[in-house]
Amino acid sequence: MQQLKGIGASAGVAIAKAYRLEEPDLTVHQKDINDPETEVKRFEEAIHVSKQELEAIKEHALKELGQDKADIFSAHLLVLSDPELLNPVKDKITSDKVNAEFALKETATMFVTMFEAMDNEYMKERAADIRDVTKRVTGHLLGVDIPNPSMISEEVIIIAEDLTPSDTAQLNRQFVKGFATDIGGRTSHSAIMARSMEIPAVVGTKEATKTVKNNDLIIVDGISGDVIIQPSEDEVKAYQKKHEDYLAQKAEWAKLVDQPTVTKDGVHVELAANIGTPEDVKGVLENGGEAVGLYRTEFLYMGRDQLPTEEEQFDAYKTVLEKMEGKAVVVRTLDIGGDKELPYLQLPKEMNPFLGYRAIRLCLEEQEIFRTQLRALLRASTYGNLKIMFPMIATLSEFREAKAILLEEKEALVAAGTEVSDSIEIGMMVEIPSTAVIADQFAKEVDFFSIGTNDLIQYTMAADRMNERVSYLYQPYNPAILRLITLVIEAAHKEGKWVGMCGEMAGDEIAIPLLLGLGLDEFSMSATSILPARTQLSKLSKEEAASFKEHILSLSTTEEVVDFVKKTFQHN
Amino acid sequence: MQQLKGIGASAGVAIAKAYRLEEPDLTVHQKDINDPETEVKRFEEAIHVSKQELEAIKEHALKELGQDKADIFSAHLLVLSDPELLNPVKDKITSDKVNAEFALKETATMFVTMFEAMDNEYMKERAADIRDVTKRVTGHLLGVDIPNPSMISEEVIIIAEDLTPSDTAQLNRQFVKGFATDIGGRTSHSAIMARSMEIPAVVGTKEATKTVKNNDLIIVDGISGDVIIQPSEDEVKAYQKKHEDYLAQKAEWAKLVDQPTVTKDGVHVELAANIGTPEDVKGVLENGGEAVGLYRTEFLYMGRDQLPTEEEQFDAYKTVLEKMEGKAVVVRTLDIGGDKELPYLQLPKEMNPFLGYRAIRLCLEEQEIFRTQLRALLRASTYGNLKIMFPMIATLSEFREAKAILLEEKEALVAAGTEVSDSIEIGMMVEIPSTAVIADQFAKEVDFFSIGTNDLIQYTMAADRMNERVSYLYQPYNPAILRLITLVIEAAHKEGKWVGMCGEMAGDEIAIPLLLGLGLDEFSMSATSILPARTQLSKLSKEEAASFKEHILSLSTTEEVVDFVKKTFQHN
Repeated sequence: MQQLKGIGASAGVAIAKAYRLEEPDLTVHQKDINDPETEVKRFEEAIHVSKQELEAIKEHALKELGQDKADIFSAHLLVLSDPELLNPVKDKITSDKVNAEFALKETATMFVTMFEAMDNEYMKERAADIRDVTKRVTGHLLGVDIPNPSMISEEVIIIAEDLTPSDTAQLNRQFVKGFATDIGGRTSHSAIMARSMEIPAVVGTKEATKTVKNNDLIIVDGISGDVIIQPSEDEVKAYQKKHEDYLAQKAEWAKLVDQPTVTKDGVHVELAANIGTPEDVKGVLENGGEAVGLYRTEFLYMGRDQLPTEEEQFDAYKTVLEKMEGKAVVVRTLDIGGDKELPYLQLPKEMNPFLGYRAIRLCLEEQEIFRTQLRALLRASTYGNLKIMFPMIATLSEFREAKAILLEEKEALVAAGTEVSDSIEIGMMVEIPSTAVIADQFAKEVDFFSIGTNDLIQYTMAADRMNERVSYLYQPYNPAILRLITLVIEAAHKEGKWVGMCGEMAGDEIAIPLLLGLGLDEFSMSATSILPARTQLSKLSKEEAASFKEHILSLSTTEEVVDFVKKTFQHN
Repeated sequence: MQQLKGIGASAGVAIAKAYRLEEPDLTVHQKDINDPETEVKRFEEAIHVSKQELEAIKEHALKELGQDKADIFSAHLLVLSDPELLNPVKDKITSDKVNAEFALKETATMFVTMFEAMDNEYMKERAADIRDVTKRVTGHLLGVDIPNPSMISEEVIIIAEDLTPSDTAQLNRQFVKGFATDIGGRTSHSAIMARSMEIPAVVGTKEATKTVKNNDLIIVDGISGDVIIQPSEDEVKAYQKKHEDYLAQKAEWAKLVDQPTVTKDGVHVELAANIGTPEDVKGVLENGGEAVGLYRTEFLYMGRDQLPTEEEQFDAYKTVLEKMEGKAVVVRTLDIGGDKELPYLQLPKEMNPFLGYRAIRLCLEEQEIFRTQLRALLRASTYGNLKIMFPMIATLSEFREAKAILLEEKEALVAAGTEVSDSIEIGMMVEIPSTAVIADQFAKEVDFFSIGTNDLIQYTMAADRMNERVSYLYQPYNPAILRLITLVIEAAHKEGKWVGMCGEMAGDEIAIPLLLGLGLDEFSMSATSILPARTQLSKLSKEEAASFKEHILSLSTTEEVVDFVKKTFQHN
């Protein structure tokens, strides 16, 4: 038995075989060979095996993922039967007396370079096909496994350095029981994805990919952050018990699903959920979400090769608003750039993307993109309770400009006879320190604030939250952060506006009593955190929490704050 | 005549011929040739010309820059006479019937790859030599000029995309009369370097390198930010007049060189200078600096292949302290990382280096580097009035840890019988928003603060100051920045501590009345800004400036602040 310690990023316990999801090492070296004929046979054999594999994947994809995905593999099969690619490889093996891997690499590189240079979408896609197929055949020639995540057909725990959105898109969710990754924190994509899939995950183990082999039996404990490799039978039993206890607790929480969120002293606060797609609304309702506090619209723009049309966006927004049946839906306008790229927009490479051209900065420049989204939102507004907020506002001028564009589009729509709701609230994210510092100025012009703690913390502490070496500075409970949050809440309340929070902090057990005491009105979190948060809040008194406000704001370090919270609220 | 508009980064007017400093385009294409014999001759001719050129550069370097630099060119000359490099190129031209550029590229690449793969410093240097020489010969073969900045022997204005520290190290300062660059702002390296060389510079022209040709006559107006290309005679005369006016104004300022800095209502504030090397002290004294407000020690660590020894550092610190003759010298401990790399430390590549592993974060981890610097400082402390400050402090725990290490080293030195000053003040940079927000907590434990506005602004606004696309958000006068500065000053004064500022803002004409009114005690700036600032301050009343404090802090945008300053203080 071996044990790794990471960060519990999604609660629960999973026990299953490890499935390593990794970029295989396909380095090819040139080698002289004596017997070209045998080498050509070896090449043909690799082609044959690759074809069989692709046929199986294609069939599986057709059944599980639909025609679209299956078509990709049909295209790959066509490449594998194309004599224009295969014959030059064989010729090269024979004439240059080189190994098949090398001959394939040289030939494929030539075709890929040629096709990519053409100004033709179709040929560029063929280049991508050749590259994918070459990888597979090279893997067989080198005896290196190529992972086929879409083919997973038994229960597994995914082991990876990190998981990208495109990795998770390929996973067959039915069989994936948990994640363990080397890097990342509670706010990384893998963590958010695991919570949305409601499977246990441990991130930031540093060495899961170094330590775990394919098919090792693994326990992932997303509550404690432990990963157990090749556990004993007793351990398996103990963790099965822990898993059952967790399910029992979940069942307990589930009783609160139709209850409002009320503190011990009878104060209602709103528990909302963060979503990325219309499909996520199901989870919000199942978990008793009272609103959508953050709809991240950028997923509409990702994983495709052009901007979504106004109609596509309208459909998505309308669906979410309708499914929420009159409950509030706070939509954040496009927050792209930074760590979220859109290949088809061809944004410049930046030295510090988190401090760069992104979100509202890009939208105010590329106004057609922005206006299209705003029109889609305005048209959808009559289907529910829509609130719109702008991300990455740094100055009042930016907020005024964004709001003016929104009102312009609204007027134009109304003038053209389109119905638009008259009660859309217009707010902004508070995630840049400057806006928290002069929140009193903003409070006069916005309808609401939503504090985005993930970014607010990283800018206030000047520490990239994705960078392991400085992650110790990602301190949600640092008194500087708590004071900025207080500035925002006090400024808003003075003007009669409400304040939400949609960063990870809003669902955090230590933060909840603090935020309640500081007067936060709405807590928006992963859907799966709502019921535990409702349970916790029902045991807290708002008046008591507020009585500690002054003391908490006078503390000087994160450690002092955490100690105080544990000492004061742990008995609840 | 053509005119470009940029940012005036160093005052004054220069008129001289343009010298383009750029990476030449040395793209080589393979070509079939019919007459290999002629091609070999062409190659030999390029070698011959390159040798002559290198001989001249070597001689010049020996005279102007010393034996060390000249030796580099001797090594290059050896490469150009080495048959082991030259013969394979000629063979390739003859046997493959390819052009000389291509044959040279293929052969050189092979040697470079081979040498670099060896685990041997000497061979790696040879690889660098071959690469340099290949560039020169290829330039001759392609008919492309290779710039030789060390050979400049007439007055020129440098035109470049941007200037790196290694570019400026090669320049013969005697002949460089000004800079005009495509990118950068007032805080970029080129700008700081121009101010330290006291030559006019315009940065951020966007298209100087596109528009200006070698030997074009150029006017650089570092006051207005204009660059005039091929001016008329009248224009030359007008700008000569402007230059003389500027010199006359400088002479006026110079009268204040031995005067203290006193406002109209008799209040003394301290005007200090930012320096990078002991040589810079001369400029500080010539410009009437009352102290060194920021000694950037990282230059000691740059442009070399290993860490500086304790003795080297001791010598540098002692020299600065002695030359300043008892005036305060605020030394900032090592601020490396971010945009300042040290190749020999092999720091990891980071996605957002400005939010990464740098400065005190690195020093607390790599304690031997930090302790060596602290020992050198402590030993030098008896030679003058030393103050030490730590960069990039984000939390109180970091400050406490850094201070504890300093005190440990002090005790150890004293125990070993080394004399150490007992009156060293220990302070910190305020450049991360979190520290400004809880400055009251820090003020109890530091001896002083120095506000680093360059970083404080970029973190508070979440905008990389080097990134042209978001540079509009680099807003020193944003009310959020002014409020953070106020928090720091009020917190310090409450505890009887002093506050300086060592960012570019401290020497800025618009900022000076604001900062005076907010109560800043020490202004540290480029040495050449001191006398203009002293002149400006002598015409301002501190009491009057302070009377506007509340109003200024109630404004909501940068534009409102600038308008107010212009309206209120312009008559001075």
